[in-house]
Amino acid sequence: MRVVVPFAAEAPKTRLADTLDADERESFAWAMLQDVLVSLRDAGREPTVLATAPIDVDVAVVVDDRPLTPAVNAVLDTASEPVAVVMADLALATPASVSRFLSTPGDVVLTPGRAGGTNAFVTRHSDFRVDYHGTSYLDHLTIAREVGASVFEFDSHRLATDVDERADLVEVLLHGEGRAREWLIEAGFELDISGGRVDVTRSG
Amino acid sequence: MRVVVPFAAEAPKTRLADTLDADERESFAWAMLQDVLVSLRDAGREPTVLATAPIDVDVAVVVDDRPLTPAVNAVLDTASEPVAVVMADLALATPASVSRFLSTPGDVVLTPGRAGGTNAFVTRHSDFRVDYHGTSYLDHLTIAREVGASVFEFDSHRLATDVDERADLVEVLLHGEGRAREWLIEAGFELDISGGRVDVTRSG
Repeated sequence: MRVVVPFAAEAPKTRLADTLDADERESFAWAMLQDVLVSLRDAGREPTVLATAPIDVDVAVVVDDRPLTPAVNAVLDTASEPVAVVMADLALATPASVSRFLSTPGDVVLTPGRAGGTNAFVTRHSDFRVDYHGTSYLDHLTIAREVGASVFEFDSHRLATDVDERADLVEVLLHGEGRAREWLIEAGFELDISGGRVDVTRSG
Repeated sequence: MRVVVPFAAEAPKTRLADTLDADERESFAWAMLQDVLVSLRDAGREPTVLATAPIDVDVAVVVDDRPLTPAVNAVLDTASEPVAVVMADLALATPASVSRFLSTPGDVVLTPGRAGGTNAFVTRHSDFRVDYHGTSYLDHLTIAREVGASVFEFDSHRLATDVDERADLVEVLLHGEGRAREWLIEAGFELDISGGRVDVTRSG
């Protein structure tokens, strides 16, 4: 199985701009990428990063500066084996959750993200293609059915939690087990349970 | 195994007040309760509702008007068998997700909810007790370890999604398979993907 991790190398995580400055967002995105790569490797896989620009990372890198949808579809177009695509901002990923995901049978296995995204998928069907625009999870269900693929929904809080905005940092502090959580703690973040809802706060 | 579903019978779901009026919140909470009960029954269990006031529902009801923590602990105090506690607002629950949860081994099996809650747990250890205040998931990890129980984290997006606020309705429309989703559709709700983020909109 080919395992691909798309990564936006430039100006990542803009929706965290209320909480992190541009350099911090880049550094934090990098920590999340490392967590995903480590989880995949500890699960016995050899991931490739599909990056929008050259990056220096300890795994194979393919550079494709196009948007996510055509870049991933180019991978699918040329694949001669099953393909897994796992987003780089799944900071709660663990070897166990990744292993369970990659070993789930089905022509197409979809992991929904919050708000209709598709955080990870496996395709073992040569005609499946992606469309990440809008509520991609529903679109991917439709595409899979249209090509006659069996579809399985993979049910995981860890892999459903892509880290896009401030509220997601709460999840990283609560459940993260890798560098992204360490990054937040070193940057002074901690849980704030003083209000009615759990939030993050920053010291220093 | 005793399976208990706590239910706030009066003025439920106040954090949905920006989207639903009081009668609607009550009706929607009822629909979610039905979805949880149906999922448990289809998974071969016979749930009991632990309600804050008498309610008319097609399963056994125990009334305890105390807050959630003492009411659940009273159940645990008198239990002579393993106990599962599943929240009534898990509108994405399915027989499959509930079955997987209830068959997960461990002295204590915890299902985190978003933002540090505990959406469901199983205890097979007689000394485990609950404390739902604050980030209950972390507290429950601590309590389980203090009593010497083995702890397992149950990883499920469906059971991690308790429906408290407007953004959660998106998840119900996307992934719900029961009455709560039907309720929203009959009330005129649909997904709104016109903005940058997926939201719900209401017609009529």
